[in-house]
Amino acid sequence: MQLPQSVQTQFVSVHDVATIIHKIGLKTVFKRLADYIRADYLRWQDFEKCARVANHSKDGVIELMPISDAKSYAFKYVNGHPKNTHAGLPCVMAFGVLADVATGVPEFLSELTLSTALRTAAMSAVAAQELARRDSRSMALIGNGAQSEFQALAFHHLLGIEEIRLFDSDSKATEKLIANLRSTNLRLKVCSSIAQAVRGADIVTTVTADKTNAAILTADMIEPGMHINGVGGDCPGKTELHPDVLRRSAVFVEYEPQTRIEGDLQHLPADFAVTELWQVLARQALGRRDADQITLFDSVGFALQDYSALRFMRDAARELGLGQPVSLIPELVNPKDLFMLIHPETQAADESRRLPDFSAILASV
Amino acid sequence: MQLPQSVQTQFVSVHDVATIIHKIGLKTVFKRLADYIRADYLRWQDFEKCARVANHSKDGVIELMPISDAKSYAFKYVNGHPKNTHAGLPCVMAFGVLADVATGVPEFLSELTLSTALRTAAMSAVAAQELARRDSRSMALIGNGAQSEFQALAFHHLLGIEEIRLFDSDSKATEKLIANLRSTNLRLKVCSSIAQAVRGADIVTTVTADKTNAAILTADMIEPGMHINGVGGDCPGKTELHPDVLRRSAVFVEYEPQTRIEGDLQHLPADFAVTELWQVLARQALGRRDADQITLFDSVGFALQDYSALRFMRDAARELGLGQPVSLIPELVNPKDLFMLIHPETQAADESRRLPDFSAILASV
Repeated sequence: MQLPQSVQTQFVSVHDVATIIHKIGLKTVFKRLADYIRADYLRWQDFEKCARVANHSKDGVIELMPISDAKSYAFKYVNGHPKNTHAGLPCVMAFGVLADVATGVPEFLSELTLSTALRTAAMSAVAAQELARRDSRSMALIGNGAQSEFQALAFHHLLGIEEIRLFDSDSKATEKLIANLRSTNLRLKVCSSIAQAVRGADIVTTVTADKTNAAILTADMIEPGMHINGVGGDCPGKTELHPDVLRRSAVFVEYEPQTRIEGDLQHLPADFAVTELWQVLARQALGRRDADQITLFDSVGFALQDYSALRFMRDAARELGLGQPVSLIPELVNPKDLFMLIHPETQAADESRRLPDFSAILASV
Repeated sequence: MQLPQSVQTQFVSVHDVATIIHKIGLKTVFKRLADYIRADYLRWQDFEKCARVANHSKDGVIELMPISDAKSYAFKYVNGHPKNTHAGLPCVMAFGVLADVATGVPEFLSELTLSTALRTAAMSAVAAQELARRDSRSMALIGNGAQSEFQALAFHHLLGIEEIRLFDSDSKATEKLIANLRSTNLRLKVCSSIAQAVRGADIVTTVTADKTNAAILTADMIEPGMHINGVGGDCPGKTELHPDVLRRSAVFVEYEPQTRIEGDLQHLPADFAVTELWQVLARQALGRRDADQITLFDSVGFALQDYSALRFMRDAARELGLGQPVSLIPELVNPKDLFMLIHPETQAADESRRLPDFSAILASV
């Protein structure tokens, strides 16, 4: 008789991801995540890609983000509910799975709320390494919510940003950020307006959460040589940048079909020229042309970053012996015999299942 | 300070689903599942629907099946890998989630391998209750693999089928089915060909797994008054019925846009007339017209059945006190403060997290 195949799924929790960060350090996590993202973007043609599948409701959206190459399939479940904070819940919550393409077995299940914050910041930094001026040292950070500290530290560790100029319409959010980052080497400057935060900054990062068509950044604020890292405009009807900001910039995107629907790009004509970031990484397209050019990364979050993040979390958890097996999928002695799982005689023979009271099923079968 | 919101996800394993079946009996499970499916199909217009998102590979497919109404969002992950049995793995494995549309919280995570077999059989029975002749007592069952016992018993319990005429190209599969169902009241007849199995049957159920364009059922086998329950043709390039079988039948489908891509319908012109089953259930369209009509349910498996199955498993597990909480989503004291999860001082203050060695992160932040 054939032995049952092990189809256990390795589960990595929020606690495990926090432990990974504590064990190897946030700087190393960002560096390795950026390496995984870069490596996967350089294999762009290997992936079966699609825009994410979104179910919209009055107050938010729930999305599925699948992607696959010949070896692995990844998907992420993620929501976006800006009003959640009023109920004590995060605006963005996520989890995801890495599966074996050859068999369909979901091998790895991970929290992705914390991981999404990490990979979003790492992705922003990967783009900025190509697009921002090399001598960038200051960054305006508009929106000081859940994602903000991760952006600040990714740019600190991966680009050498030393000064962060903070603005949020909710001053408590800014206070929280300052408390969280007070033990770092970053110089944190609280600004009283977006314009003040942006003035003189080398990089401008926008990470606001409102599901509205806002124009928090207008063309008059933008200075030659700036790099704009637009993170918060990531959903139809949820934008941050005035269209003129895009018109003044060289615009780079993750995956054009998705960004046209979801990004700040949604307000511009379908033929507005953009460059996909993988082309820059693969040296098939130019990144920053010169020190005066305004560059813009219109980031919406693409499934490939989650594929990278899942790969990294799986590998890091394995290295550190973290995670635990969960039984998402049944183990079958005979794979054509699913009924075995509920068959009273099989159950009776299998003490390990400890199933009580077979009379009910015997009577009913 | 605000108390952390509980965002734990209730997890129901394969073992829990087997226990549900043992506790309340398979007959009751089928009856209740059929009731849930019928209730949800009668609310057809309430749902945001889409064809499932499939990533195809050489040997199989991995699919995501989302659906939502104003209250709940459901999705299923499911694969289809016909060659998996050679590796000791099921061809079809699945799990899924029920989430709160208002907040995006994934409230319920369940195995769906066993549940998919249950809901597929329940769905077939719901359709046959509308489409098969009321005096149906015998069913041909072509394909005796993982799904077959569930089909046999759903039709036994919900339609009064007394005789099952079995055929599978793998005689071991048929032996397995007979062993599994020997303690039931069903009369099981082994047939030496598909034609022999089909001859004189009131209902013909096809549940084969090969990912090929097969024509295991041809028009010459079909007799007046038969109901055909086509379950195995559910993927582009994976069909079971000769197109002439469909041409001779009144064809009913779950969700037309998906069935045109995936069902046996894929070989027929786009204007070939079909009826969506919800219309029959809602009495907006006729089911079986008379005792001689040939009816055909071209089933591919639609997300709404999984929504129903997830609702049922959640409710049944709750009633029986089954399942366990898992931490897919972090609990945050301040929902704008995700960084708290990895902040060394917060960690130090929170003994319950038991995180070791803060020096690494302190040094690196």
